[in-house]
Amino acid sequence: MEAHPSLKAAQEEMKKEAKSSYFDLPALDVSVAFPQATPAANFPPCTSDYYQFDDLLTPQERSIRMKVRIFMEKEVAPIITKYWEKAEFPFEIIPKVGALHVVGGSLKGEYGCPGLSITESAIVFAEVARVDASLSVFILVHDYLAMHTIGICGSEIQRQKYLPSMAKLQSVGCWGLTEPDYGSDASALRTTAKKVEGGWILEGQKRWVGNSTFADILIIFARNTTTKKINAFIVKKDAPGLQATKIENKIGMRVVQNGDILLNKVFVPDEDRLPGVNSFQDTKKVLAASRLMVAWQPIGISMGVYDVCHRYLKERKQFGAPLAAYQLAQQKLVKMLGNIQGMFLVGWRLCKLYETGKMTHGQASLGKAWITLKARETVALGRELLGGNGNLADFHVGKAFCDMESVYTFEGTYDINTLVTGREVTGISSFKPALLSTGSRL
Amino acid sequence: MEAHPSLKAAQEEMKKEAKSSYFDLPALDVSVAFPQATPAANFPPCTSDYYQFDDLLTPQERSIRMKVRIFMEKEVAPIITKYWEKAEFPFEIIPKVGALHVVGGSLKGEYGCPGLSITESAIVFAEVARVDASLSVFILVHDYLAMHTIGICGSEIQRQKYLPSMAKLQSVGCWGLTEPDYGSDASALRTTAKKVEGGWILEGQKRWVGNSTFADILIIFARNTTTKKINAFIVKKDAPGLQATKIENKIGMRVVQNGDILLNKVFVPDEDRLPGVNSFQDTKKVLAASRLMVAWQPIGISMGVYDVCHRYLKERKQFGAPLAAYQLAQQKLVKMLGNIQGMFLVGWRLCKLYETGKMTHGQASLGKAWITLKARETVALGRELLGGNGNLADFHVGKAFCDMESVYTFEGTYDINTLVTGREVTGISSFKPALLSTGSRL
Amino acid sequence: MEAHPSLKAAQEEMKKEAKSSYFDLPALDVSVAFPQATPAANFPPCTSDYYQFDDLLTPQERSIRMKVRIFMEKEVAPIITKYWEKAEFPFEIIPKVGALHVVGGSLKGEYGCPGLSITESAIVFAEVARVDASLSVFILVHDYLAMHTIGICGSEIQRQKYLPSMAKLQSVGCWGLTEPDYGSDASALRTTAKKVEGGWILEGQKRWVGNSTFADILIIFARNTTTKKINAFIVKKDAPGLQATKIENKIGMRVVQNGDILLNKVFVPDEDRLPGVNSFQDTKKVLAASRLMVAWQPIGISMGVYDVCHRYLKERKQFGAPLAAYQLAQQKLVKMLGNIQGMFLVGWRLCKLYETGKMTHGQASLGKAWITLKARETVALGRELLGGNGNLADFHVGKAFCDMESVYTFEGTYDINTLVTGREVTGISSFKPALLSTGSRL
Amino acid sequence: MEAHPSLKAAQEEMKKEAKSSYFDLPALDVSVAFPQATPAANFPPCTSDYYQFDDLLTPQERSIRMKVRIFMEKEVAPIITKYWEKAEFPFEIIPKVGALHVVGGSLKGEYGCPGLSITESAIVFAEVARVDASLSVFILVHDYLAMHTIGICGSEIQRQKYLPSMAKLQSVGCWGLTEPDYGSDASALRTTAKKVEGGWILEGQKRWVGNSTFADILIIFARNTTTKKINAFIVKKDAPGLQATKIENKIGMRVVQNGDILLNKVFVPDEDRLPGVNSFQDTKKVLAASRLMVAWQPIGISMGVYDVCHRYLKERKQFGAPLAAYQLAQQKLVKMLGNIQGMFLVGWRLCKLYETGKMTHGQASLGKAWITLKARETVALGRELLGGNGNLADFHVGKAFCDMESVYTFEGTYDINTLVTGREVTGISSFKPALLSTGSRL
Repeated sequence: MEAHPSLKAAQEEMKKEAKSSYFDLPALDVSVAFPQATPAANFPPCTSDYYQFDDLLTPQERSIRMKVRIFMEKEVAPIITKYWEKAEFPFEIIPKVGALHVVGGSLKGEYGCPGLSITESAIVFAEVARVDASLSVFILVHDYLAMHTIGICGSEIQRQKYLPSMAKLQSVGCWGLTEPDYGSDASALRTTAKKVEGGWILEGQKRWVGNSTFADILIIFARNTTTKKINAFIVKKDAPGLQATKIENKIGMRVVQNGDILLNKVFVPDEDRLPGVNSFQDTKKVLAASRLMVAWQPIGISMGVYDVCHRYLKERKQFGAPLAAYQLAQQKLVKMLGNIQGMFLVGWRLCKLYETGKMTHGQASLGKAWITLKARETVALGRELLGGNGNLADFHVGKAFCDMESVYTFEGTYDINTLVTGREVTGISSFKPALLSTGSRL
Repeated sequence: MEAHPSLKAAQEEMKKEAKSSYFDLPALDVSVAFPQATPAANFPPCTSDYYQFDDLLTPQERSIRMKVRIFMEKEVAPIITKYWEKAEFPFEIIPKVGALHVVGGSLKGEYGCPGLSITESAIVFAEVARVDASLSVFILVHDYLAMHTIGICGSEIQRQKYLPSMAKLQSVGCWGLTEPDYGSDASALRTTAKKVEGGWILEGQKRWVGNSTFADILIIFARNTTTKKINAFIVKKDAPGLQATKIENKIGMRVVQNGDILLNKVFVPDEDRLPGVNSFQDTKKVLAASRLMVAWQPIGISMGVYDVCHRYLKERKQFGAPLAAYQLAQQKLVKMLGNIQGMFLVGWRLCKLYETGKMTHGQASLGKAWITLKARETVALGRELLGGNGNLADFHVGKAFCDMESVYTFEGTYDINTLVTGREVTGISSFKPALLSTGSRL
Repeated sequence: MEAHPSLKAAQEEMKKEAKSSYFDLPALDVSVAFPQATPAANFPPCTSDYYQFDDLLTPQERSIRMKVRIFMEKEVAPIITKYWEKAEFPFEIIPKVGALHVVGGSLKGEYGCPGLSITESAIVFAEVARVDASLSVFILVHDYLAMHTIGICGSEIQRQKYLPSMAKLQSVGCWGLTEPDYGSDASALRTTAKKVEGGWILEGQKRWVGNSTFADILIIFARNTTTKKINAFIVKKDAPGLQATKIENKIGMRVVQNGDILLNKVFVPDEDRLPGVNSFQDTKKVLAASRLMVAWQPIGISMGVYDVCHRYLKERKQFGAPLAAYQLAQQKLVKMLGNIQGMFLVGWRLCKLYETGKMTHGQASLGKAWITLKARETVALGRELLGGNGNLADFHVGKAFCDMESVYTFEGTYDINTLVTGREVTGISSFKPALLSTGSRL
Repeated sequence: MEAHPSLKAAQEEMKKEAKSSYFDLPALDVSVAFPQATPAANFPPCTSDYYQFDDLLTPQERSIRMKVRIFMEKEVAPIITKYWEKAEFPFEIIPKVGALHVVGGSLKGEYGCPGLSITESAIVFAEVARVDASLSVFILVHDYLAMHTIGICGSEIQRQKYLPSMAKLQSVGCWGLTEPDYGSDASALRTTAKKVEGGWILEGQKRWVGNSTFADILIIFARNTTTKKINAFIVKKDAPGLQATKIENKIGMRVVQNGDILLNKVFVPDEDRLPGVNSFQDTKKVLAASRLMVAWQPIGISMGVYDVCHRYLKERKQFGAPLAAYQLAQQKLVKMLGNIQGMFLVGWRLCKLYETGKMTHGQASLGKAWITLKARETVALGRELLGGNGNLADFHVGKAFCDMESVYTFEGTYDINTLVTGREVTGISSFKPALLSTGSRL
């Protein structure tokens, strides 16, 4: 019953220091504290692609997939745990992401954007989320919300002015629609834009805005006090009266810097109003693509969780056998694997519907809702498979488990998305309740 | 508060008869008893193909799909409920199924077989199962078990002798592997085949054999008393010593005639031994394709259930509104719809893997297991959506709900299939338990 | 590899007959066809009472429990499968149930009723349902609906006239509230009662009425054409214009004889109007107790399913070990066992709340909803545990699985009951939807 | 569309500062950032006790329940979020917990222990966990592991020496059994105790030990190098060679300070060996009670989550109505409520079995497993109900959701506990797998 070699080394170290008190010592490295299984800083190979999806991809799609996968495994996996724990953003990563030449997504190839197909973009989000969901949200907000709003609803001058530096991630964008009183119901949006000489005065409050504590460019939605319709504006981070403070105490997506934004008579010049946003309907073109991208995040999250579990079960032993030898463990793993095949194919089919111009809102909502439902189940199974180590961000699965809750909720909660689809397939809207007195019988 | 017109007619009828006692009257037709919703004898249109799978099919696949769908809706839906209730088989349907020219499945086009692609065959099973799961089992047993065993493991003479009439359904086949003591574990197979002058003597018992109470041709697996390996034989229904009796009291698949087979010194001439079956391994080529076909039955079952629910929710009213207007109903319907999209795509991908020669046993088992799991959930949601009428075979969903339990269990139970996949992805078999004494600690 | 003795006997029988054709033979007895496990005709001992609930019962409650249990195991289990298969009622059982002196439930001990406590009655329903759910519905309809309506809402004369023979089951009652257009929503009740000289004329249609095809006494609810309120009437089975026909094609509760009732100008004399029913509210006292009894049926159903599974897993072998030795089987069994402990305790607590006069409608609905939800899960696990034999009524579990669907749906569906509780705990009713045009945005 | 008053105040504050940059500002107080709903610092009243469990409690049990509830709501709820976020321990709370006079649990009333009944202790853990699960783990480890091991397995001298100050929480205990290689399987325990002159030398590594980074007294289990049996020792925090370092990066129970312990030739004098621990079996008396206490933590966690959700749904509005008015929200809430009633009653029944000396290991394991399974479902529903705010520790539910994962896993994972019960009810142990070669057929 000889001590483990790394334990011995650690004990040697202790002896030298002759410590008898142990407060405030640095934590033991997880590879010493738990030598039996490899932590996720050394990310496992992809074993979740069981039905060989590469067959469904073009050579270019496969090539982008591998480029992003390698980047995430080599550059992000080794460093991300500590940022997640501290709820801080790894600014060092930004130029490296920019250099991948995937930001700008499906925006046409001018303005320095890569002009990816929707499928290519989707795969990028999955591969990023496979290693870290927060980073995929960072890119999503910057790219499919901020950049795409400028790309789709901006003027030619605005596109030329903002997109090239954003495509290189030299400037970072965010996107402020949600408010404290407005989650699922746009009619509740209260931030106002009042026309004044040479521009507009914005007044109000935004909440949950990703990237906003450090973004250079904020897309802000506000209600035009004259038309009562919703307009959108490009606000710069140093605008007087603007304040964005970090939302703390998050249980997941801790690397994403969500902000509470206060707009206190913020002046925006005429040239920074986005001419293509004249009502809430105009946001839908942006949201259709972004919802599709969001649907791919849980695919990637689930794949990463499976990949880690697959390795862990073979490394970790109990009762003299690897956990992989147990029926209960195998069945959970296989259930996860089945979910992932279904998710990937549903996401892929949605891309094809989008690319042929056929995708409806109901189909997009079904994809987002169903995929997140399966992913939530998948990460919970993975969390359970890792036992105590499933509660540590070091082994990835616990982190992904927490991150997944955000995905289940943002861009339309599960409930709201099912009702969007329900309305489309039944022809009847059921969003609003009929408020009846409690006196009614039943 | 005027009585419903059909009710009035029924009451008029009563008056004429001046009945004051009501025992042994025929049941009220369901359209009179429950006028609010259309029964499944008038099958609803297909609304479950939400992601437009026709895009993934060739024109020929689409054409076969429509041919079978129309046949099932017009010829089978109106008559099947009463057979299911009585647990009898609709022999009148057999020549009509034969005339569809789909039986013989993927066997090459000689011998009168249609030479379908695997995808085409899969779609046939889904479309048949959409209206009646039992009928799809009838075809599966006859075609993908009996005919394919002859086609794959038979001699050229045997193929020429048996396949042409079977392809026309002029003779019906069945397939006897399972025994009372042998479900998942082939090593327990006890039926024996003893070599004698000019042939073999079969002795033993089989169980659950579909179609066997009326099949003309029975493929029987037995253990060679000399080699101890498994062989297969073609047995005719009038062979002395052969007896097949109906298994009664089934909760589902009541149209399928499963039999208990007793083999009491049944003589089989040498020419009726299938030369290609020399061990249990030789059955696997047959089972790989049949398991794939089985995986498509729950896809069809789920589609039919959704289609009926979709119509029902719009017809059936409560509290002054169609059920389709309720959040709880919409969410169930949408969950079913999401499952179906996932199932169809997983089934389709499995066909492509098979067609390119890549499909592994683990992939097939995962497909069968995962699809049946989702289908079981889907039909239970549908059963719930129909309330009391969900308990009547007349409205299809109750019948499908019961039928689905068989699919979940046959061709490898859910548990067994997950362990087949689990073994493939972990490299460790976990089928057998280690029997420990109860004295062990924990 | 010697043939099983009972198989041998069957084969001997065959030889004598020298049969070479096998159509229309009687089915093989299940104990011959599947010798490995005991069928439920020989019901297993109760092993589901893991937390020793007898501790919570009084000696009298325990004594009634054992009396009913023994009766069900000895008298009902051996014969019930064939009735279920044929969807017929075992009339031979009626006098034996009457002799148990439990019918009449909690009605005071006059009129020949046993004057049970609510807990005693609840235990009776569980013990009956443990072996056969249909029989517990037969008793429930007769006792807690028909008799209790007379007992609670009838006049003294009516009580004296009807209850004594009903308590002995010399006459059988049923209870007609539900109509084709009225399931959950009482305001839709359309059957009318028009005052005429000396009595009332009833006109309308009822549906799903249990026992109605043979009941002597039918309690019929109808809308008073003058007051527009709901009244109730005692109708005799030979009343001219009354017709009750059997509802066929049920997937479960096949022993219960549900009827469609047509009322074609049925005259009811004044003396047969129940004076205590002057509005729908007056039915609630009856329904509160019956809902509580219904909540105990799934407890009994689940216990019976567990008990059968527990024995089956130890008898049935695969891969050389009893199924009970497998992790996947054990975990399912234990999950069922946990559910049952929770269900029993929730049902017991509900009885205590009722007995102390504290039980609210929301509490009763929560009990019924939650218990049926857990029971539905429990029987599905059991169905799976029995593999192919789980699809045969002979092994009880398949039958119980189908029966459970009715319980999940009647006396308020799961959804309706959750909304009843939801209304009570939130103070807001959410039964009715707000019908919005599909044009609304989201 | 007037700004919210607290928003106005915040904007006024900003104006004074004339800020145009917003980095590193303190986070907005959540009551300003999200004025619509009350954060959990102001803990809601208990509405989860729907079936009036107080009826089952003695006056003294009710009194302790209220004492702890008030303490937790007033003293802990307002401060705990920030500690959870920082993963730090609120040392300021320790004397206040000591002053409640509940620590020492069921140990007899000498040594300053309160001599609670098992039911009283269980209720304490539920009430603490209702507001903060971590704090209940802190007490559990100190009391039901460390103190009870001394109380049950210690000598009279040891009891007198250690228990009085521990009962007042003037010294804190922890309990080191788990090791990196030993989770569920005790035979893998590798830490050694070697007899030397006057005492013992401990050598090895422990993991996950709660409270260990600051505990004064560590109970350490080690394998006697002579007998090969497991012994236990009281180790002081300043013992030379002892080092405990904090385990970081936890997703839940962040307030609990789990440590990795290194024992590098730690000398323990003879008087600090616990004479009652002579094999692993001797730990079972301690673990039986602690497992029961652990089973009550998820009851409390679920109650707190329900209570917060119940208030939140009534405060938070969408589409002009409180969320409580939506069917989908009500059904989730009611499902949670049903689970809680079941959990509480199962936990209560387990206490009664324990108190009458009847509780078996299988019963305790079933209780722990089943309750945690229902609680995991309950907190996930709650997490979903709170939407985006469900991802913030400020609203309690997100924190409880994460904490619950630990409870699901420690003191026997869900899987292990189900197999403990499975062994008891089937008589067959299924813990260990049979490792078969992958060559085996199926």
